[in-house]
Amino acid sequence: MHSPTLLIHKEKACRNIDRMMQKVADSKASFRPHFKTHQSHTVGQWFREKGIQKITVSSVDMAIYFAQDGWQDILIAFPVNPMEVSRIMALAEKINLHVILDSMQALYLLQNSLSADVCLTIWLDIDAGYHRTGILWSQTAECLTLILAIRQNPHLKFGGILTHAGDTYHGKNPQEILVIFNDTMERMHTLKKTLESELSGSVPISIGDTPGCTLAPSLAGANEVRAGNFVYNDLKQVSVGVCTIADTATAMACSVVGIYPHRNELIIHGGAVHFSKDFYSENGQSIYGKVLQASIQNSEWEQTIPDTWISSLSQEHGTIKTTPDFLSQTRLGDVLLIAPVHSCLTVSAMKDHHQIMEGSRS
Amino acid sequence: MHSPTLLIHKEKACRNIDRMMQKVADSKASFRPHFKTHQSHTVGQWFREKGIQKITVSSVDMAIYFAQDGWQDILIAFPVNPMEVSRIMALAEKINLHVILDSMQALYLLQNSLSADVCLTIWLDIDAGYHRTGILWSQTAECLTLILAIRQNPHLKFGGILTHAGDTYHGKNPQEILVIFNDTMERMHTLKKTLESELSGSVPISIGDTPGCTLAPSLAGANEVRAGNFVYNDLKQVSVGVCTIADTATAMACSVVGIYPHRNELIIHGGAVHFSKDFYSENGQSIYGKVLQASIQNSEWEQTIPDTWISSLSQEHGTIKTTPDFLSQTRLGDVLLIAPVHSCLTVSAMKDHHQIMEGSRS
Repeated sequence: MHSPTLLIHKEKACRNIDRMMQKVADSKASFRPHFKTHQSHTVGQWFREKGIQKITVSSVDMAIYFAQDGWQDILIAFPVNPMEVSRIMALAEKINLHVILDSMQALYLLQNSLSADVCLTIWLDIDAGYHRTGILWSQTAECLTLILAIRQNPHLKFGGILTHAGDTYHGKNPQEILVIFNDTMERMHTLKKTLESELSGSVPISIGDTPGCTLAPSLAGANEVRAGNFVYNDLKQVSVGVCTIADTATAMACSVVGIYPHRNELIIHGGAVHFSKDFYSENGQSIYGKVLQASIQNSEWEQTIPDTWISSLSQEHGTIKTTPDFLSQTRLGDVLLIAPVHSCLTVSAMKDHHQIMEGSRS
Repeated sequence: MHSPTLLIHKEKACRNIDRMMQKVADSKASFRPHFKTHQSHTVGQWFREKGIQKITVSSVDMAIYFAQDGWQDILIAFPVNPMEVSRIMALAEKINLHVILDSMQALYLLQNSLSADVCLTIWLDIDAGYHRTGILWSQTAECLTLILAIRQNPHLKFGGILTHAGDTYHGKNPQEILVIFNDTMERMHTLKKTLESELSGSVPISIGDTPGCTLAPSLAGANEVRAGNFVYNDLKQVSVGVCTIADTATAMACSVVGIYPHRNELIIHGGAVHFSKDFYSENGQSIYGKVLQASIQNSEWEQTIPDTWISSLSQEHGTIKTTPDFLSQTRLGDVLLIAPVHSCLTVSAMKDHHQIMEGSRS
């Protein structure tokens, strides 16, 4: 193993998958997990072995990557990029492809590129409060116009209304997150009812954020669930009460390359190009990662080392602020296991440098 | 071209190289540019054609990558990672390799792994005020002990004292940056003089930050200069007065995938996995990138679009805040050119998706 390496704890990840699958099943919804978090054929296989057949991705590249591994039903949960319409069509000739859009212009672009063999499922991207992409949930007329246009085209199928309540990532505690989640569900239901009263047939709802889907007692009312981050979780989710450290399934293994007792700091090989640069604030400090109470030899992490966190990242260096106590136990070359702040971005950065830990103590 | 793509403006980059080479030559120093900014054989070749023979990198991986392209004199400006000592030794058997360290423990690690064929140059990493790695500049005795130990080993060569004044990146304007740069130079000189009075022979000084090296009228007093970011510059450097937009040599080409007039925002394909997540603050706003007054057809950028910036990045999405005026001119699928905040991190993320623009108008 070189340093830094991303460790993926299979047992924890599988436990996380089982838990979310059970909740989705109990809620009578179907599960289309987001694979952008792991971006891995191997981890995809864990889902497949549990019976998952439909997946979500966030780019055409990722859709192609998973189609190559035999996935036949893929939703690209990213607005149609006009530059990639021909790649979308080529893929739609091979698999059951779903895309999202929120404008007539995007629909025209797709319609102008349809070939005779293609049947593409289109979901309306709805802005239920996050304000990133989507038609505002209150704009019923705009939704109706688009749905009718989709239905008129024999090569297109209307999938339903879809939202990503990414604003739950801004919630500071479970209560705040649940308020956002419930508001989102209520808005989506209002829209669904209005659309169904104007149209023949049902209008399915697809939802997807990990904080809300993890904390909500039930996902009843959603027809499809696209959560993704839950497979690994991360320090950000821990910080707002979505899960515990024991539920986080990734850790960065980084060697200590510098020890500075006069300022209670360690330097590790592990920087912005490995962790990405996401952080959150805690007691006025920016946290870019926390050191786990665990080692390569005993990787059953359940807690972090007290008062020990990555306080800054440059390209290859990470600076860890710590206590005299932890510092005095640390030697040059020690490998620390570090919980990343945002697993999706860290995993994406470390795609070519990861290691799967098969047992609970590997 | 898919989107997003990193555009590298060869003419601007070569102009930046020429300017820094001239200053280093005028200062009677030798130039060992840092290649972590571009990480590219092609761009390395531009330096080689101008006569550069020695380079700096920030990882063993990068050293191997450039050694494969024929570079024979490489400094790894990152503390020796105990996990990588055997890879360092293997490389030192093939090329003239320089490493840095700041502790006796690190020196022992290297000494214990030396093979008969190796001659490794070691630079003392000095903390002249940045407080990331290095021996504090005032710790003369510690420096002397290490230098004497290095000199005793026939397989090791003492290179000199080296510092990275990364604190110049925290300067808010040219005046602040120059104060930090001058303090650094003064401290390094004090240390050099003290060491030279105790030792036979000279103690060369190696410095390296782009903000200081760009703004200082002269680099006289440094024996070796390792700046790197200057080849491309970036928005952060513009924001503190180190250079102008015309001097920035990279741009991200990103398509518009969503237009939201009710909140004056555009969504582009271009997120944290492409730009990285570095930002700076300006008038209370977090800036993750700015849109250039340029296009794929006319890429001679000299200014940014007024009041138009990336205000947030998720994994694949970038949110651009803009004016009603610019928004009304923008169409779905338009390709915007965007100046990245930190070129080193953006280039690292986009290594496999870049395009070199050969002419000034490509």
